[in-house]
Amino acid sequence: MTVPKIVGIAGGTGSGKTTLAKKIREGLGSASHLIQFDWYYRDLSHLPAKEREDVNFDHPASLESDLLVEHLRALKRGETIEAPLYDFKTHARLTETLRISPHPVIVVEGILLFCFEPLREMLDIKIFVDTDSDIRAFRRIRRDMRERGRDFNSIRKQYYKTVRPMHLEFVEPSKRYADVIIPEGGNNLIALDLIIERLKQFA
Amino acid sequence: MTVPKIVGIAGGTGSGKTTLAKKIREGLGSASHLIQFDWYYRDLSHLPAKEREDVNFDHPASLESDLLVEHLRALKRGETIEAPLYDFKTHARLTETLRISPHPVIVVEGILLFCFEPLREMLDIKIFVDTDSDIRAFRRIRRDMRERGRDFNSIRKQYYKTVRPMHLEFVEPSKRYADVIIPEGGNNLIALDLIIERLKQFA
Repeated sequence: MTVPKIVGIAGGTGSGKTTLAKKIREGLGSASHLIQFDWYYRDLSHLPAKEREDVNFDHPASLESDLLVEHLRALKRGETIEAPLYDFKTHARLTETLRISPHPVIVVEGILLFCFEPLREMLDIKIFVDTDSDIRAFRRIRRDMRERGRDFNSIRKQYYKTVRPMHLEFVEPSKRYADVIIPEGGNNLIALDLIIERLKQFA
Repeated sequence: MTVPKIVGIAGGTGSGKTTLAKKIREGLGSASHLIQFDWYYRDLSHLPAKEREDVNFDHPASLESDLLVEHLRALKRGETIEAPLYDFKTHARLTETLRISPHPVIVVEGILLFCFEPLREMLDIKIFVDTDSDIRAFRRIRRDMRERGRDFNSIRKQYYKTVRPMHLEFVEPSKRYADVIIPEGGNNLIALDLIIERLKQFA
């Protein structure tokens, strides 16, 4: 077996990185597998429900990056992993896990992915999706309203309180570690073609 | 014959775009040919020598973009072109031209390349090389001292007078048109591999 190539995709909320990751997956088919850094949120089941709500989920400390590093290392060694799954309503890890075997290409996607040095070292290609902050804000608002049934005021409050400050402190500076910066993410067909056709050569 | 793919590389002075263009050329060998937008500076031989010195060579108007558009169209039609050559000492076009036949990949490189809409439309892939402005300044100073025998004060004067204002007015905003942004240019081996291996599929 060849050692999996690990492609990391980072970028701010609403940047289009999830769309990019999904389209890369579609382009590569069964030769690839997706890992979302969101699955590695720390299990907060030991905290009272009220305290869980107060955790800053936009801060790097809320993610168990060590576990992801360990899993990527295992995949590179040819081992199958049991990726955690997360319940965003209760902020607790599910008892089920997702079994992932080594694939020629592993796509890892997450806002804070480039903020951890040991994690960056595991990534063979680091792609940062860069989209103007006003467009990202509109996308975030629309998604939170549609998919999470939240009202504008609560979205706005969270954006000012944690999303924006954490973006400026952690996400934006982590762009510096990117090998390639893709404007607009998954809607950028020329960049998508460039990446997919290159990755197909590993598949 | 297949229609040539035209790859445009833009970026500020000292960004590393020329190095990137050269490495792409090396990677593709005889399947590619380079065109420098600098060759298309307007012929100023009708002006007295003194006035030629006063022209703002960092402004888009100093370049004959229409001629480059015409040449790229001709190459796409399968025709051979006679690219102009420029004498930067006298600011005049040489009587010799460079004969360029259609190649599978044509790499066009220039600071102001993405500032002209008709030119952007001719480019199949638009790559912007993005490097921090302090690093670009150091590179520019070193190059102008070494290769052009200029002293620091004259380099500094020109930088403040035209290079920097034209960069902020024209070059930096043209990054918006890029399909892919490459930090650090020719020294970025992972981006270089991504681009070269994709372009080889056209070659």
